[in-house]
Amino acid sequence: MTGRLVDALVTTEALDAIFADAAVLQALLDVEAALARVQAAHGVIPASAAAAIAKAAVAADFDADALAREARTSATIAIPLVAALTARVEAIDPDAARYVHWGVTSQDIVDTATSVLIECAGHQLQRDHTALAARLRELSDAHADTVMLGRTLLQPAPPITFGLKAAGWYASLCRSWARLAHAWHDSARIQLGGASGTLAAFGDRGPEVVDAMGNDLDGPLMLLPSAAAPWHTARDRHAALVSAGAIYGGVLGKMARDVSLLMQFEVGEVREAGGGSSTMPHKQNPSGCARTLAAAARLPGLAATMLAGLVQEHERAVGAWQAEWPVIAETLQAIGAALEAMRIVMAGLTVDPQRMRANIDATRGAIFAERVMLLATPTLGRARARELVQDALARSQASGQTLADAVRSHAELAGAVPAADLPTLDDPRAYLGAAETLRQRLLAAVDAAAAEAR
Amino acid sequence: MTGRLVDALVTTEALDAIFADAAVLQALLDVEAALARVQAAHGVIPASAAAAIAKAAVAADFDADALAREARTSATIAIPLVAALTARVEAIDPDAARYVHWGVTSQDIVDTATSVLIECAGHQLQRDHTALAARLRELSDAHADTVMLGRTLLQPAPPITFGLKAAGWYASLCRSWARLAHAWHDSARIQLGGASGTLAAFGDRGPEVVDAMGNDLDGPLMLLPSAAAPWHTARDRHAALVSAGAIYGGVLGKMARDVSLLMQFEVGEVREAGGGSSTMPHKQNPSGCARTLAAAARLPGLAATMLAGLVQEHERAVGAWQAEWPVIAETLQAIGAALEAMRIVMAGLTVDPQRMRANIDATRGAIFAERVMLLATPTLGRARARELVQDALARSQASGQTLADAVRSHAELAGAVPAADLPTLDDPRAYLGAAETLRQRLLAAVDAAAAEAR
Amino acid sequence: MTGRLVDALVTTEALDAIFADAAVLQALLDVEAALARVQAAHGVIPASAAAAIAKAAVAADFDADALAREARTSATIAIPLVAALTARVEAIDPDAARYVHWGVTSQDIVDTATSVLIECAGHQLQRDHTALAARLRELSDAHADTVMLGRTLLQPAPPITFGLKAAGWYASLCRSWARLAHAWHDSARIQLGGASGTLAAFGDRGPEVVDAMGNDLDGPLMLLPSAAAPWHTARDRHAALVSAGAIYGGVLGKMARDVSLLMQFEVGEVREAGGGSSTMPHKQNPSGCARTLAAAARLPGLAATMLAGLVQEHERAVGAWQAEWPVIAETLQAIGAALEAMRIVMAGLTVDPQRMRANIDATRGAIFAERVMLLATPTLGRARARELVQDALARSQASGQTLADAVRSHAELAGAVPAADLPTLDDPRAYLGAAETLRQRLLAAVDAAAAEAR
Amino acid sequence: MTGRLVDALVTTEALDAIFADAAVLQALLDVEAALARVQAAHGVIPASAAAAIAKAAVAADFDADALAREARTSATIAIPLVAALTARVEAIDPDAARYVHWGVTSQDIVDTATSVLIECAGHQLQRDHTALAARLRELSDAHADTVMLGRTLLQPAPPITFGLKAAGWYASLCRSWARLAHAWHDSARIQLGGASGTLAAFGDRGPEVVDAMGNDLDGPLMLLPSAAAPWHTARDRHAALVSAGAIYGGVLGKMARDVSLLMQFEVGEVREAGGGSSTMPHKQNPSGCARTLAAAARLPGLAATMLAGLVQEHERAVGAWQAEWPVIAETLQAIGAALEAMRIVMAGLTVDPQRMRANIDATRGAIFAERVMLLATPTLGRARARELVQDALARSQASGQTLADAVRSHAELAGAVPAADLPTLDDPRAYLGAAETLRQRLLAAVDAAAAEAR
Repeated sequence: MTGRLVDALVTTEALDAIFADAAVLQALLDVEAALARVQAAHGVIPASAAAAIAKAAVAADFDADALAREARTSATIAIPLVAALTARVEAIDPDAARYVHWGVTSQDIVDTATSVLIECAGHQLQRDHTALAARLRELSDAHADTVMLGRTLLQPAPPITFGLKAAGWYASLCRSWARLAHAWHDSARIQLGGASGTLAAFGDRGPEVVDAMGNDLDGPLMLLPSAAAPWHTARDRHAALVSAGAIYGGVLGKMARDVSLLMQFEVGEVREAGGGSSTMPHKQNPSGCARTLAAAARLPGLAATMLAGLVQEHERAVGAWQAEWPVIAETLQAIGAALEAMRIVMAGLTVDPQRMRANIDATRGAIFAERVMLLATPTLGRARARELVQDALARSQASGQTLADAVRSHAELAGAVPAADLPTLDDPRAYLGAAETLRQRLLAAVDAAAAEAR
Repeated sequence: MTGRLVDALVTTEALDAIFADAAVLQALLDVEAALARVQAAHGVIPASAAAAIAKAAVAADFDADALAREARTSATIAIPLVAALTARVEAIDPDAARYVHWGVTSQDIVDTATSVLIECAGHQLQRDHTALAARLRELSDAHADTVMLGRTLLQPAPPITFGLKAAGWYASLCRSWARLAHAWHDSARIQLGGASGTLAAFGDRGPEVVDAMGNDLDGPLMLLPSAAAPWHTARDRHAALVSAGAIYGGVLGKMARDVSLLMQFEVGEVREAGGGSSTMPHKQNPSGCARTLAAAARLPGLAATMLAGLVQEHERAVGAWQAEWPVIAETLQAIGAALEAMRIVMAGLTVDPQRMRANIDATRGAIFAERVMLLATPTLGRARARELVQDALARSQASGQTLADAVRSHAELAGAVPAADLPTLDDPRAYLGAAETLRQRLLAAVDAAAAEAR
Repeated sequence: MTGRLVDALVTTEALDAIFADAAVLQALLDVEAALARVQAAHGVIPASAAAAIAKAAVAADFDADALAREARTSATIAIPLVAALTARVEAIDPDAARYVHWGVTSQDIVDTATSVLIECAGHQLQRDHTALAARLRELSDAHADTVMLGRTLLQPAPPITFGLKAAGWYASLCRSWARLAHAWHDSARIQLGGASGTLAAFGDRGPEVVDAMGNDLDGPLMLLPSAAAPWHTARDRHAALVSAGAIYGGVLGKMARDVSLLMQFEVGEVREAGGGSSTMPHKQNPSGCARTLAAAARLPGLAATMLAGLVQEHERAVGAWQAEWPVIAETLQAIGAALEAMRIVMAGLTVDPQRMRANIDATRGAIFAERVMLLATPTLGRARARELVQDALARSQASGQTLADAVRSHAELAGAVPAADLPTLDDPRAYLGAAETLRQRLLAAVDAAAAEAR
Repeated sequence: MTGRLVDALVTTEALDAIFADAAVLQALLDVEAALARVQAAHGVIPASAAAAIAKAAVAADFDADALAREARTSATIAIPLVAALTARVEAIDPDAARYVHWGVTSQDIVDTATSVLIECAGHQLQRDHTALAARLRELSDAHADTVMLGRTLLQPAPPITFGLKAAGWYASLCRSWARLAHAWHDSARIQLGGASGTLAAFGDRGPEVVDAMGNDLDGPLMLLPSAAAPWHTARDRHAALVSAGAIYGGVLGKMARDVSLLMQFEVGEVREAGGGSSTMPHKQNPSGCARTLAAAARLPGLAATMLAGLVQEHERAVGAWQAEWPVIAETLQAIGAALEAMRIVMAGLTVDPQRMRANIDATRGAIFAERVMLLATPTLGRARARELVQDALARSQASGQTLADAVRSHAELAGAVPAADLPTLDDPRAYLGAAETLRQRLLAAVDAAAAEAR
């Protein structure tokens, strides 16, 4: 375990609670209780046993530290847990004790409990995602006309709108969320197979008990589907979950990188509410971006671990399965941390259209050199056009005049540019291309995907 | 570059050809030619220019080594390529030269060409996948009744059927292929945005030219969809491709691990046709499994690289994008190598039902201890049942008799087991649980998913 | 945070305590106190201030949960910690409060505290390493003459001794420990640089204060060296620590893989004391190997995260640094878990020389085919020798006789083998090559490296 | 294989040649020839056989494509290679053919050839490293007095010197090189063990032959040490090589990130000679930084793959070993590419001290707020000092005056600052702290480490 201090930036309050001992223990006990209930309903064990087991399955009565310690001997938490639960059931109803954990294997309990935790975490994430997505769309609409520098390889390029940039963030985020939400629902399933995954201990009622577990309307498992068969060593669904989470986190990281770059003192185009410095009174740090990037940075490595762990032996694995639990827990928390931080960043984002425009002007029109070249090429040919534009650029850099002025004052080049375009050579609005159309296409694509998903 | 020798095991003949210089160069040139053709069709450049460009765009006329060398200066292959293409076009039609690469950016060309390569690779993979999947289903059906040891943590567990094991492989493989195929089709798209991704150089015809590129019926791009907007720094679709490929490769790796373990001399339950040893005449090595595992081992690291690379700056990135090309190429080849090797392994797999049964018998019934305990628990209680079964196990290990005999010769235990079950205590067929039902559910789930996908 | 249950298998009792909130908080406070003490000693702040700060720096008086929560706003634990410490100092001595955290930056405190934690963890690891290494050497010596199958690609190969195998484990372990120990001592250093790493707030006494911090004889920092200069964005030493840890963990994983394979029921050559199963009374699981493999599986991904995080901006980074803390903490705990588990596995390892010999015999001499071929090649040539040996092998497999008998009964082949070798063709002791020499060389190399390190 | 185009940015001309088929094939053949030569010298095989083998071992006579194709069947290049070599030897001297590859295993040949390739690559890297290190030291010395903004979390911080920044790069680079060079020499070793690693086929001359291989003065192996014993599944040295390479690459990546950020149009403090754009005439791209970052980005994933591959079975592994070859080759090439690009970047780096100073001035003294606070705290206390400084900062931002002027015009604050410091409140040279001392300590530490290594 790494305590709350070490992990502070890579989780959230709510997700920390989901993976804390109390909640995890209750999830494990809930699975044992639900199993007993369903087995009783299908005549596999007596109803009285199920009642006693449900009564004993209260996390507060167990010692999580001791269970963790004992788990190190058997390499599974289920063995000490079942022993402890059996003892408590015995105190309630000695006859019931024999039916605790009936016919199932350790992994059945841990995997199903993990599905419960994934389900809880997913709903937490969804809340923040919805808020962030809405805010990005709002920013995109509000800044459909806000021109700013495009930047490629960290150098100025022809203008875009901040609305287009925000729409790009938004569309990536929604695409990635759709992948993550699909993987979440696909992976949070009942696991029930018994020792070798054949449900041999269930007599001929195995499959029906499994399916019934997912419809256990009284308990926390009610929403979990079963699978066609036990998936003790078929871990592709969880690998898909972690991978999709890493993609979603990467998309958040891209937004954080962009914001932190735009927030540089020398750029100053946007600003998150941010945090202070422990020593420098003047600092306004991109703290939310830092947290997003820090949490997102964990995800590729976690995904690699999960992917490498797909190679599991036979019916149940030695090592690879046992490695998964912390990986899944850390992945969901890291996604949550990156998401929460970015939600807060965007909610408090200040956009400075004046500075954006000033930064365009500071290039003195150099970013329009491409436009001049394209305008002049049909007349001059590409080579000659490039040569004259380079020359105009050099003169403009040296003299401090704008590129547009340098062009207009050069007879051959000015003559090659269509007369109608000469006055707008350094007007960013005249060289936005399809920015607004593309912005609207991005929003429409999100709407279309959402409609299809319904 | 690592040559064919170093990369021998992590590619296939066909995939190697797709990513070899000749094919990559032609893909890049095809994109330039298609671009010109579509631009001409929409009046952006003259038709004669498009014709000259198409005529010049023949890979055999270019020097790939020189282009690679020059790419190191500009950090993009497109700059030397466009220069070389322009020179060749100029020799054909001087006027046309000015319209080469009109209004687009390096990444437009490389990304779209990569889409073409992904498309080609995907079709190659599909062929092998279909063959492997069919063979696994055949194996599952043929061995629906072949009993074998289940094995958990590499130790014997209650019996399963080889048909169920093969069905598990099959279902994982098909689920993972569905993810991969979806990601493949989703990622292989037209990229066209120009300098800042606004299509500014296309006047007001940008979006229509982009969409038309994907419908360029004369060329190799005809199947590629466009996207709502340029995706120069929105790389989630490619990250999804590489991740899905890593999952698919991991599923193949699990099969290879299982086969190589079952093929151990001491186990001897299956055998791949395999390869020999350079020094040991007696060896029959799991060479195909080794190749599958070797190729699959590359994938988690490649996925991590791709995922970490999602954090790209602004409108086009410095470094992260440039890192992607070899990652995508190596991923597709590694998947292909793992898949081809496993297709061959399974095609030539020898299954030995006698040995499977002998290995069950060699446990002298120990694997049925769980069954005995479950049968005796309702009468004896779990603790007493476990104690007596442990005792019977110990006697059976010491004496060499089977567990069933040890149980039958122990009055209290024998009395607690239902009489009808006493004779079949060590019959694996009597303790297969829902193995056949689960097998059929796995096959049906694949059929259902395929039907839904149609 | 993931609680003790989720992380049970990937830490140890002792390491969990080192990274738990109480210890981490005390380490952070110890650094603030030591800083004040040293600053006072060098006249940077008043001695009374240092005394008050030391008095207030008691972890039990702080609320770790609240600090973690507040850290999410500023993206650093130091800001809320300094605020809380200042408040407590103020209550003791209002004048002293102004000198809390004097002239340093958040990262100075967190990095130095991390050095303290690394130091503590390193000593914990060393204890288990020493015990495991001693046990491996003991096993190697005890089994210098115990013959067993060599196994390559999971197939039988010419014999080795278990002593040689254990010596190989031992030598790898000691080499890897030397790397890890070096990286640990190299990375656990004082960090002290102030806002930009120039110690500007220390006047002209910066470097001497930094060096003095490492000689703070009253406190827990007394063993930590300083560095030539602050290393806020020079993280190579920590990357080296995590990488070396991943290698050490991989070496442990190799041992666990070997033991779990040798412990298979069908092989049965060694056995760890192991753990039971929650459902199968007969099972003796390689639980220690499972734990080792599970913990080791985390390390490559953690290393990749740390390595990717080396790319840090300017004087202090946005995101990459903030990602490191949990990575380092999890790495040290995972190493510790893998190591503790393997120490226990080896301490309780049962070796079965009879079974080893029986497994050799079960190959009926096939593993000596190489030997026969080499013996016969000088007379017959390689091709003919291989052909005849293959033939003898086939006859031996078919008839159930040993390869040696098949050779001796074949005139041409028997004639080609030197007469002196004919009787020992299937004696494993006659084909051990330099096994014992190599074993002793491995032990000697460890001794030599240890002597050199002294 | 991925061709030269796809891999253009992640290799260099020289390293590409080392891992191209011709060189790899020759290395493999050189090992077979050296083996024969040494075996002949020790009486293991006839001298005439060694001569014939050496004569036949000419790469140009072999078909690398065919060998690669056949390697896919046996999962090792050595089997088809030995067959092809044997055929060629047979044509020269039929008796000699039987001694080709005498008593060794595939992995012996491939591992030793890889050591040769590592050795060649290491020397290539060393050349560029030496040049880059020298240039960094030169830059550091030349700019010992060039003040610039420190930047933390991408925001302005108190000043540093460019000389200190360059010294930090330099010291990290040299530390990382020392690790890499050590790992290179430690990993490039003779591998010779035969089938099970016991040298059984060498009679009693095994160890002496192995040691002699490393002293084979006529051949390319002359510099390679042997190891205490074969290391077929003890891969820690190669994992250390790849990890050290990843750290070195990460250090280069940090430099590239810094340069590309400083080269932003809005910052403009340094400029690499860089490359152009395929469409924008005005662009001066950080192309070298892009190449460095792209190549460095591969390394964490490659390291993770190598680290995960440490878990190898028994005496020779199934899959994990076979995965290593391309990983090692790609790692060395990626390091080389990142290094070559950064060497060129730094060789052509333009530094603009005026712009650096202007960027400091543009903060209007805000970065000195920490200094003012520290100066005023002894009089005012931390809380009051911080409050007044924040207030002065706000007034200065609003009015456009500098912070120094705002302080000087505020009676309480001005009174609290020592009179001697009032005039220099915004002089960056007055707040450099120990920058020059630290710079010199960094250079001295490199010198000391180099002296110790000699």
